[in-house]
Amino acid sequence: MEGKDRLIYIYGINPVVEALKIPFAVKELLISKNRVSKLKEIISLAEKNSISVKIVDETYIEKFSSGVHQGVIAKVKPKKNISLQEALKIPKMKNQPPFFLIVDLIEDPQNFGSILRIADCTGIHAVVYQQKRSVGLVPSVWKASSGAVWHVNLVDMNNIKYAIKEFKNYGIKIIGAEASGEKIFWDADFKKPLAIVVGSEGKGLRHTVKQMCDEIVKIPMKGHVNSLNVSVATGILLFEVIRQRSLSCQ
Amino acid sequence: MEGKDRLIYIYGINPVVEALKIPFAVKELLISKNRVSKLKEIISLAEKNSISVKIVDETYIEKFSSGVHQGVIAKVKPKKNISLQEALKIPKMKNQPPFFLIVDLIEDPQNFGSILRIADCTGIHAVVYQQKRSVGLVPSVWKASSGAVWHVNLVDMNNIKYAIKEFKNYGIKIIGAEASGEKIFWDADFKKPLAIVVGSEGKGLRHTVKQMCDEIVKIPMKGHVNSLNVSVATGILLFEVIRQRSLSCQ
Repeated sequence: MEGKDRLIYIYGINPVVEALKIPFAVKELLISKNRVSKLKEIISLAEKNSISVKIVDETYIEKFSSGVHQGVIAKVKPKKNISLQEALKIPKMKNQPPFFLIVDLIEDPQNFGSILRIADCTGIHAVVYQQKRSVGLVPSVWKASSGAVWHVNLVDMNNIKYAIKEFKNYGIKIIGAEASGEKIFWDADFKKPLAIVVGSEGKGLRHTVKQMCDEIVKIPMKGHVNSLNVSVATGILLFEVIRQRSLSCQ
Repeated sequence: MEGKDRLIYIYGINPVVEALKIPFAVKELLISKNRVSKLKEIISLAEKNSISVKIVDETYIEKFSSGVHQGVIAKVKPKKNISLQEALKIPKMKNQPPFFLIVDLIEDPQNFGSILRIADCTGIHAVVYQQKRSVGLVPSVWKASSGAVWHVNLVDMNNIKYAIKEFKNYGIKIIGAEASGEKIFWDADFKKPLAIVVGSEGKGLRHTVKQMCDEIVKIPMKGHVNSLNVSVATGILLFEVIRQRSLSCQ
């Protein structure tokens, strides 16, 4: 993913404010002429950082956004992903047991963005995703992540199965999450080096991915509809990792 | 909320299938003529239950839905909410310590729906919400809940503060969730009778609601953006209740 110079357009106040925190990331700011007074703070933030601000028609903003834009667009240099090998060095650098998330074919930008927001909150070492058959880092993902995309280490793979193999070579346990799991998630040992794998919205984990997991855990269900949104499930699992690891430090 | 005879229009395959499971709830099914073959199963399910099925233009379906309708609408009798007094009897009937959720001014239908879906999965006794300044049970909430609206006991109040007072009279502890909380959520005792209060998307709990809480808990944050979507936060908290209570049963 390196070497791409094409700028991408991200929109919405939170994602743009997060982008402005990253040195040299924002190349230009577009502000709807209808909302200049409401966006004063963001404009002065940009000007402080010597970023050019263009006041444009609201229709222009609309053209380059695919959701609630709140009158602001930032033209940004796409964030550079890291390589799997770089990701594997992070736990040692942080002196923590490895903690990775692998997303298997998430198609909904809302879900992928929400997952990255959760990943940021948990201080996870990296999130691994597949370029093909996934939503990828489209602007609506930046928006849904509230700008967390900037802060999460991302690894994109042609195939996540290669990452799973490589993690295993490094002694990292692969924990799949699925309703068919035998173990309830809180009974699993999340203190050991691990990568959690969550699957696509409708279908869960692919069979071939499931087969590569060292363990499959489930979230117990006590209702009627009995399925959680994938980002909610990811939040529950990742914070259980944080909980277990905080206990072991005491 | 009783006595309303006006039908509401819910849309999307999952919410409609859930509605068809409820005896006498669905009055009529509308199917887009472009999607009859794809919706065969839902049509035969309706016919089995002697529910009238009308094949209509796709534009008609579009007119009565505000999101992804998948070609199907069900005209349904609105679900009856229960009273606070009825809700208070449920824990005893189930022989479980009280477990309630109070939502303070949730405005986004996606979030409210997702919260109800989580509530269903946890088998919570009831969800209390405020009619005024909240989104209420609009069709997009039914859609976002994947039909879980049908299965969750709902209590609507003019003001949730009255419910909080009443819960306290019954010895139920009120646990507010907010970033400013002193205690990390897993350090709180969730085995005792409790109602968890979650606040609106941008603003969190209202000051006056916070003051009524017996305890404020937080979800620890280790990143940069450091805020979770309210439905993800609700998922994490409610499943911690389930986890703690399952341990106390062993």
